[in-house]
Amino acid sequence: MPPAHPFDDDKLREECGIFGVTGVQDAATFVALGLHALQHRGQEAGGIVAHDPEQGFNSARRFGYVRDNFTSADIMETLPGPLAIGHVRYSTTGSKGQTAIRDVQPFFGEFSMGGAAIAHNGNITNANALRRELIERGSIFQSSSDSECIIHLMARSLQRNIPERMEDALRRVEGAFSVVAMTRTKLIGVRDPLGVRPLVLGRVGDGWCLSSETCALDIIGAEFIREIEPGEMVVITADKGVESHFPFRPQPSKFCIFEHVYFSRPDSILGGRSVYETREAIGRELAKESPAEADIVCPVPDSGTPAAIGYSLESGIPYAMGIIRNQYMGRTFIEPTEQIRNMGVRLKLNVNRALIRGKRVVLVDDSVVRGTTSRKIKEMILDAGAKEVHFRIASPPTAWPCFYGVDTPEREKLLAATMSEDEMVKHLAVDSLKFISLDGLYRAVGESQGRNKACPQYCDACFSGEYPVVPADKVEQGFKMRTAAE
Amino acid sequence: MPPAHPFDDDKLREECGIFGVTGVQDAATFVALGLHALQHRGQEAGGIVAHDPEQGFNSARRFGYVRDNFTSADIMETLPGPLAIGHVRYSTTGSKGQTAIRDVQPFFGEFSMGGAAIAHNGNITNANALRRELIERGSIFQSSSDSECIIHLMARSLQRNIPERMEDALRRVEGAFSVVAMTRTKLIGVRDPLGVRPLVLGRVGDGWCLSSETCALDIIGAEFIREIEPGEMVVITADKGVESHFPFRPQPSKFCIFEHVYFSRPDSILGGRSVYETREAIGRELAKESPAEADIVCPVPDSGTPAAIGYSLESGIPYAMGIIRNQYMGRTFIEPTEQIRNMGVRLKLNVNRALIRGKRVVLVDDSVVRGTTSRKIKEMILDAGAKEVHFRIASPPTAWPCFYGVDTPEREKLLAATMSEDEMVKHLAVDSLKFISLDGLYRAVGESQGRNKACPQYCDACFSGEYPVVPADKVEQGFKMRTAAE
Amino acid sequence: MPPAHPFDDDKLREECGIFGVTGVQDAATFVALGLHALQHRGQEAGGIVAHDPEQGFNSARRFGYVRDNFTSADIMETLPGPLAIGHVRYSTTGSKGQTAIRDVQPFFGEFSMGGAAIAHNGNITNANALRRELIERGSIFQSSSDSECIIHLMARSLQRNIPERMEDALRRVEGAFSVVAMTRTKLIGVRDPLGVRPLVLGRVGDGWCLSSETCALDIIGAEFIREIEPGEMVVITADKGVESHFPFRPQPSKFCIFEHVYFSRPDSILGGRSVYETREAIGRELAKESPAEADIVCPVPDSGTPAAIGYSLESGIPYAMGIIRNQYMGRTFIEPTEQIRNMGVRLKLNVNRALIRGKRVVLVDDSVVRGTTSRKIKEMILDAGAKEVHFRIASPPTAWPCFYGVDTPEREKLLAATMSEDEMVKHLAVDSLKFISLDGLYRAVGESQGRNKACPQYCDACFSGEYPVVPADKVEQGFKMRTAAE
Amino acid sequence: MPPAHPFDDDKLREECGIFGVTGVQDAATFVALGLHALQHRGQEAGGIVAHDPEQGFNSARRFGYVRDNFTSADIMETLPGPLAIGHVRYSTTGSKGQTAIRDVQPFFGEFSMGGAAIAHNGNITNANALRRELIERGSIFQSSSDSECIIHLMARSLQRNIPERMEDALRRVEGAFSVVAMTRTKLIGVRDPLGVRPLVLGRVGDGWCLSSETCALDIIGAEFIREIEPGEMVVITADKGVESHFPFRPQPSKFCIFEHVYFSRPDSILGGRSVYETREAIGRELAKESPAEADIVCPVPDSGTPAAIGYSLESGIPYAMGIIRNQYMGRTFIEPTEQIRNMGVRLKLNVNRALIRGKRVVLVDDSVVRGTTSRKIKEMILDAGAKEVHFRIASPPTAWPCFYGVDTPEREKLLAATMSEDEMVKHLAVDSLKFISLDGLYRAVGESQGRNKACPQYCDACFSGEYPVVPADKVEQGFKMRTAAE
Repeated sequence: MPPAHPFDDDKLREECGIFGVTGVQDAATFVALGLHALQHRGQEAGGIVAHDPEQGFNSARRFGYVRDNFTSADIMETLPGPLAIGHVRYSTTGSKGQTAIRDVQPFFGEFSMGGAAIAHNGNITNANALRRELIERGSIFQSSSDSECIIHLMARSLQRNIPERMEDALRRVEGAFSVVAMTRTKLIGVRDPLGVRPLVLGRVGDGWCLSSETCALDIIGAEFIREIEPGEMVVITADKGVESHFPFRPQPSKFCIFEHVYFSRPDSILGGRSVYETREAIGRELAKESPAEADIVCPVPDSGTPAAIGYSLESGIPYAMGIIRNQYMGRTFIEPTEQIRNMGVRLKLNVNRALIRGKRVVLVDDSVVRGTTSRKIKEMILDAGAKEVHFRIASPPTAWPCFYGVDTPEREKLLAATMSEDEMVKHLAVDSLKFISLDGLYRAVGESQGRNKACPQYCDACFSGEYPVVPADKVEQGFKMRTAAE
Repeated sequence: MPPAHPFDDDKLREECGIFGVTGVQDAATFVALGLHALQHRGQEAGGIVAHDPEQGFNSARRFGYVRDNFTSADIMETLPGPLAIGHVRYSTTGSKGQTAIRDVQPFFGEFSMGGAAIAHNGNITNANALRRELIERGSIFQSSSDSECIIHLMARSLQRNIPERMEDALRRVEGAFSVVAMTRTKLIGVRDPLGVRPLVLGRVGDGWCLSSETCALDIIGAEFIREIEPGEMVVITADKGVESHFPFRPQPSKFCIFEHVYFSRPDSILGGRSVYETREAIGRELAKESPAEADIVCPVPDSGTPAAIGYSLESGIPYAMGIIRNQYMGRTFIEPTEQIRNMGVRLKLNVNRALIRGKRVVLVDDSVVRGTTSRKIKEMILDAGAKEVHFRIASPPTAWPCFYGVDTPEREKLLAATMSEDEMVKHLAVDSLKFISLDGLYRAVGESQGRNKACPQYCDACFSGEYPVVPADKVEQGFKMRTAAE
Repeated sequence: MPPAHPFDDDKLREECGIFGVTGVQDAATFVALGLHALQHRGQEAGGIVAHDPEQGFNSARRFGYVRDNFTSADIMETLPGPLAIGHVRYSTTGSKGQTAIRDVQPFFGEFSMGGAAIAHNGNITNANALRRELIERGSIFQSSSDSECIIHLMARSLQRNIPERMEDALRRVEGAFSVVAMTRTKLIGVRDPLGVRPLVLGRVGDGWCLSSETCALDIIGAEFIREIEPGEMVVITADKGVESHFPFRPQPSKFCIFEHVYFSRPDSILGGRSVYETREAIGRELAKESPAEADIVCPVPDSGTPAAIGYSLESGIPYAMGIIRNQYMGRTFIEPTEQIRNMGVRLKLNVNRALIRGKRVVLVDDSVVRGTTSRKIKEMILDAGAKEVHFRIASPPTAWPCFYGVDTPEREKLLAATMSEDEMVKHLAVDSLKFISLDGLYRAVGESQGRNKACPQYCDACFSGEYPVVPADKVEQGFKMRTAAE
Repeated sequence: MPPAHPFDDDKLREECGIFGVTGVQDAATFVALGLHALQHRGQEAGGIVAHDPEQGFNSARRFGYVRDNFTSADIMETLPGPLAIGHVRYSTTGSKGQTAIRDVQPFFGEFSMGGAAIAHNGNITNANALRRELIERGSIFQSSSDSECIIHLMARSLQRNIPERMEDALRRVEGAFSVVAMTRTKLIGVRDPLGVRPLVLGRVGDGWCLSSETCALDIIGAEFIREIEPGEMVVITADKGVESHFPFRPQPSKFCIFEHVYFSRPDSILGGRSVYETREAIGRELAKESPAEADIVCPVPDSGTPAAIGYSLESGIPYAMGIIRNQYMGRTFIEPTEQIRNMGVRLKLNVNRALIRGKRVVLVDDSVVRGTTSRKIKEMILDAGAKEVHFRIASPPTAWPCFYGVDTPEREKLLAATMSEDEMVKHLAVDSLKFISLDGLYRAVGESQGRNKACPQYCDACFSGEYPVVPADKVEQGFKMRTAAE
């Protein structure tokens, strides 16, 4: 029953959101609220594990939205206790389109010193090799998820307590990982040495919480304390508070720059500023780099909105909602009739015909992936009588797949992997098409000197093809990394 | 299973959307798409009746969204034929909170000259008296819906064809009604003599369609021909096209002005202009009438957005998204835990804390009904560190209930029915609160001279208390109309 | 979702069971238990209407078994009050295979003097004509069920109280009807003048109940008082008790003889004797009329069991269970794979191979309808190594369809309508095949002189083709009644 | 959602049925049919694993009946291939009342040489110790089922092929086990050295099948070849056919004698004779040992029926169905109202009052466990006016719990563990109560010399307290085995 996304395949998609809390009553309810706020990071399924001193570990895992699965008293009463973690997900590697409920995290393992649950955001780039090794040694995998490797590595660690077993396990893992885990008494958070995926720490009442983004702190009334550092492990107990460890070899950090562009919610805080403001700044930078003669600036809703506002503010061209989103469009057009399937983007978006007619329109979108949606939107705008269409894209051309926990099409499906900007203008048949430059994007996110070519301040592999961690499994399967010549 | 709306009770709600089409293949699929575009007019349930020359009348009625119920091949194959009508609804009078599936329209009746189906947007103000009379004569009602009166009146008419029976029936009905109906061969549309609720005519391929709003024409690629006139009945057949009748005594028209303010979708066209532009104009008018010293203009999403853009454009204060809406908030928090219920508006909205801190904020909302949401939003804004909060409301104070097909609280629950504007400022504890004037609203919708006091150009009973049709059933139940003194 | 019965189409099926109770707490629970005991009379769907002085009429109607739909506290709490009626059903005329939930009884109507609900067991033979007349007068039918005519006739009656309206209505109705009905204060029971279908009266605590069979009195601990007389109407109130009326012209009674053969449960009492004993007597009579040389007597389970025991007792041939029924075979092989569909009877029955091998077997079944099952059972028995197979049937050849509330195939599908007994022996390829004689059956049910040819004591139309009420609708549709020559 | 059995707690219950097939098209459909025939061995849940050379391993596991879960084309199409195994179950040790879907077998493991699935009927008496050891070594358990130990032991075996790994694993396991397993190419069957639980081999077309009982061979038209021997492992491949191994140390066999009394279906063959005939023989033996002066012999349906027939044949007292079972009583009275719960046995059984009145009745039941049902049935019979009630029980007093795969109450709940026969007569307040003797039972199952006290031919621990395998886990938990004195 994993629902298909017939009309949303033209975005990169974050694959997970994670949340954990300790030291509060009914921790699972806090986790449900946190996951609801992180729903944009994964809509396919969600799971919660809670621990109660008397009733032990309990878990629930479901396909569908948090609001539909984790809000009724019925289900929440089965998850008692002051300590809980949770996870929302898209399908990860391996089981695309066939996710079974057993692939839904958190994963749980019973060790001789007690149980532990773990939820992972990111992607393990050497998972195939690890899985082969573990099976050879006698581990039986429950799921097709690569993240399960972590719990089997922990089960086989020679260490005598769970945090040390987790350190042991994560030292074998390559790739991107932000992890939230729990034992009977401890809430644990870890970010990989590069800090590719986000993880933040919050204070709620007398308790503590960990979250992928700050917007999930707001919903439970938690105070944002700080980001977990790249390579840091925090072990939190109700009595001793937060202990910090750095179990990995230090490396220059490589936070995912696309979190600024699209993944994170606009009301989350990254680097001391709201993501909304960063995106408005991207729009302003874009207006400076690629101005246009036009009557109105329209966003492609909803993700293009902040950049469009920035473009309008910088350029002085009035901002207007030329495209209206149907707010009742969910993910559930399962097995639609042929006729309905063909409607595609029209089910979701409609052009404000009376407004658009005769106008020169700047259309601001966050990114171009396959280009299929851009093409349809352009057609709708022209059908409605627009005089000119100028596309402005709030990110550089997406030319390389991500292997660090983001769902990207194969390289040949990426428009920018096969066409130059000029070819794209022709392909999309628009009056102009401009992407922000990579340096412009770095400036907008706060790097006033732009990108440090020698050692980029962010992971920007999807734009640059420069992968900070070699995607070993993919290379083994035939993926060709960028060569010097490219 | 009719879902509750625990967090949405602070809006007036349109109670219905209607759509019909003839002369196309698989008419029911067109109706499903049309209803999907009209979902904002009614989210509780939907129904479709289709007619096929060989398979006769078929119908399906379901609780929930159109996208969940009327898109699979499974269901659409049970609704074959070139002629179909449909309906989306909130609960109407009588059965609030206990709607049974038999209350879901279209209603169907088998007459001696064949079957007919009917879908109604509006409210019959003399329904109680009609129902008593019909039961006395031996009619058996299937539902608790007042709209069912129409089909029973038709069954008892002495006329020998269905359109004439419908005229006969509608002449006995008082109140507001836009009706879409069908026989085996005819698609019929009617608006009441005052034209309170909308109804438009479109051309799709070789066929015709009727819809509550033009946005539903766009989704099926239909051309907008014209609005059905107040008091007009159109009878459409595949071969003869559109025949127009005027069966009622002519009266000055009284279109619902709140359709401009809130009910209609911004991309629909009313009076030759997009509703979005009208709302932007309302925002401009509001900025002229009630300026503010502030740093940013923020909408209460999503309904306050166009007016906020207008306010920003007129005032020069930058527009910004200070409140972010959780797009995964549906209607389905059924039986939430106490803790979750108490979260109320926070589940749906979050303040962009980093943006708001230290700012003077103009908050633009479309209307204030009970005032409960306004209060909570204000608190969230101040919690986030705003320096000042100035509310600007894109409609006059809502002081009177609507009896013409809109779900309004009882009069004593309306904030504006019990408080002056000054009292509201204190009650909400904001720095300022200003509503647009009734004349200003009329100007914004295009009446350059403002409101004609002797004979208002619109139905504005919810603001003025001047009801163009006496709500007979309500008066019988004790509702006190406005007296001269008031 | 009305489930199909792919493997059960070789039986006549009673189409309804009815039950009502007044003067007890939680009457609906009593009705649920009564309907559970009557489930053999109708397995497709069930409905209950209850009345509570404070909460008025409430109803629930569901597809499926009583035990699955009407036992949880959840549903039963919605049906409060001391007065309730209920109905279980197969599909009746008109809507076979396409039953909608609105076809599920009891039917309810709101009259000017209050509401009434009605549940009907039987069939109205002039329903088409009545329906046409009612539609012409302006009635709107909710269902495709003929039984709905009764409530519309009541709605149009000129009488001023409901029991008199019901008399009025039932005088217009032809055919077989046992009816249980209720108003706000009265429980009403009626049997048609011929008394074709059963209805009994019971006493439970200080209250009263009406039921199709006595087995449903046992389950609620009620005392069996008496059968309702043919042509009698009882009106029961908590205070005045049972009032008896005889609103119809008296006629000789014609109780359905097939109730003795198959429909009624063996533990029900008919004519002062358990149905089990009557069936055992039929078996004894059959052994006298048609003895066999054999090693064992086996029933076709479960309906042939009592007659097989009787045959064994009379003949001295040992009784044995040569065929075993899979007790987990329900009605729910919905959309089975082709392979499973082809299994047919083997999913339900298995031959006790080790027991049967080499034996001469008398197989006793209650009736032969299409003969398809008989053929398959014979093949299974021979496959298992039986030496001889002698079929003995506990009813005469079923050669005519029933039009009085029983689901029968069309005449040409009845094996006995197209073949003589000799032809059937050949067709089934058995060593012998004998039916009980019509006179023998009458003797076994207690008529020591056998059948009164001039005026048969029972309705035996399915055997004799002598219909006590002309099936007017069927004749209009082309059914040919038996001519003198036949 | 594992349904409760509120009215069935007075029987011992077999906990599993297993079935496997290879060398046929659509093997999973054969397995579904086989499991349907074995449904009496486990009604809580079922699972099937199938293997297809192209599509690999696929599985489906569901709560509820086979007929409801594994018959639609929808589900069966997801289980392609010529090789499949399946399992039906009650809850086993550990998770009573809280079974999760992950506890439903077959279990699957991916080993370095390929995948294997395994289904187990029986109980592992040293499971706790094995589980502790495996967790200590780093295994992560997916379920709370003890049977999962087998697959983890296999994962850790040093052998290089799966059959040898299975031998390795099973040599570590104590208790009762009949196992059906599969690799990509092999179907494997094993019985423990004592042969406590049944397992038979069949031939179907060009393929082979394994089943708990022969009745499941009949349903797919398979030929019964032979029983798998105690301690035998068969490895079946499409090309090489059946290879037989004997990996365990030989021991005298101890087949469960209760399979003859109650567990197996009457149409299954055990020891060359139908179980029905054995039960009839038990009834005859019982009549010889414990005659009664009475008018009729009635079975407690359905399990007492064959013995009642035997008792009648031996004694000459006529057999009659004095108690009628409601065939629509399923397992699904979930959360019944208090009133319905109190009905208990009456929902399932009704006395044939008209038949019983004034009679002296011999009531034959298969066993007495808690005695609660016996007491209620006796009351119903006396209420109905029986003159005398003589209980005859087709098994010796059940005084000891089973630890080999049967669900038994704790010892103190067993009536025969706390009362002598005389005390039971008083407790049940019947005119007489007689159990068959242990020797009588052995004679009836074919041991003409009765029970060999030195080395009983069967496992009869539930009657004798002599456990052929020490129940190590239970003893560790405090269970006291029979002492010499007892």
